Amino acid sequence: MRVSELSRASGVSVPTIKYYLREGLLPFGAASTAPNQADYADTHVHRLRLIRVLTQLGGLSIAATRDVLAAIDDPRLPVPDLLGVVQRAMAPARGADPQARADVDRYLRRRRWTVPPDAPGRDALARALAALRDLGRDVGADVFAPYADLADQLARREVATIPANAARAEAVEAMVVGTVVFEAAFSALRRLAHARHAARRFR
Amino acid sequence: MRVSELSRASGVSVPTIKYYLREGLLPFGAASTAPNQADYADTHVHRLRLIRVLTQLGGLSIAATRDVLAAIDDPRLPVPDLLGVVQRAMAPARGADPQARADVDRYLRRRRWTVPPDAPGRDALARALAALRDLGRDVGADVFAPYADLADQLARREVATIPANAARAEAVEAMVVGTVVFEAAFSALRRLAHARHAARRFR
Repeated sequence: MRVSELSRASGVSVPTIKYYLREGLLPFGAASTAPNQADYADTHVHRLRLIRVLTQLGGLSIAATRDVLAAIDDPRLPVPDLLGVVQRAMAPARGADPQARADVDRYLRRRRWTVPPDAPGRDALARALAALRDLGRDVGADVFAPYADLADQLARREVATIPANAARAEAVEAMVVGTVVFEAAFSALRRLAHARHAARRFR
Repeated sequence: MRVSELSRASGVSVPTIKYYLREGLLPFGAASTAPNQADYADTHVHRLRLIRVLTQLGGLSIAATRDVLAAIDDPRLPVPDLLGVVQRAMAPARGADPQARADVDRYLRRRRWTVPPDAPGRDALARALAALRDLGRDVGADVFAPYADLADQLARREVATIPANAARAEAVEAMVVGTVVFEAAFSALRRLAHARHAARRFR
């Protein structure tokens, strides 16, 4: 299909498609001499939708989206490493209070969670712990225990839904979708549940 | 204390403190003729830490932070309404596909979740549903059922930890902290758990 048809099929405007082509987020169509003449396929439509999910729902920048797509396209990258790329793209490294980080690391060891030392979740959790202490709560990392139990339950189920013999492309997309879409969904549901329980308790 | 001492006690720079004063995020100190002469109290230190949590951990803009603080300071605002303000500040209204939104509304009715029609979580969940369909998955809102179960369990526990006879200020802060800090913590834990389970499954 031509770029105008690609735009109609994907709901992404032609200028935005050209921008993605220039930025290397979208591969050029077949026999492309100019974007308008190139022949685009269904894979392009799907790629545009994936870009939309990453940028709009996941809040990823164009640069972070490009990193994720490059990792998806790299057949040598093992699937768990791809997960690290997606996680880093969604939550860029920002560091954390060293004491809180040491407490988080000790807590994860005690729970026997084997996670790479540079997994971005470690600093993210340490920032949450430091915030609680900043606000005057005298708490250790075990304040997160009920959350860790539920998160572990959820993640185990999510990873298990990916067939072990899935094609790489399928496993990879399931992982990206799981990280971005279901995180947004869970956060929405938790807020809805807060609204419902708070209304019951305080009215 | 003077503004320089307030800066040391809070870890927030003097120019940033003056910016917050100008923007109405931080009340002026007692007998204030100029920020440097005013007398600041421990409540100012605490307020600065709360601002830091909202902006850095919650990712709120200055305008959204001001909305949340104004709601906290308004003694006439019932606590569940405050929750709506915090939720809207964290996830500004963006609309959603009408079909997905109708499906979400129907799903919440079927689960008997009584939630205001303008609760921002409805559109946020509808956007997640629309994203799944966009990516070619033929799913209904019940794809979120396991997430809804866990979110409900978590929210019920979180709301219950707020003493029913808590002072308003205490209840309010617990709610803000619960929304912002524990959401960040849960998201970090889910990603850590993904890393751990994916490594087991794919290596």
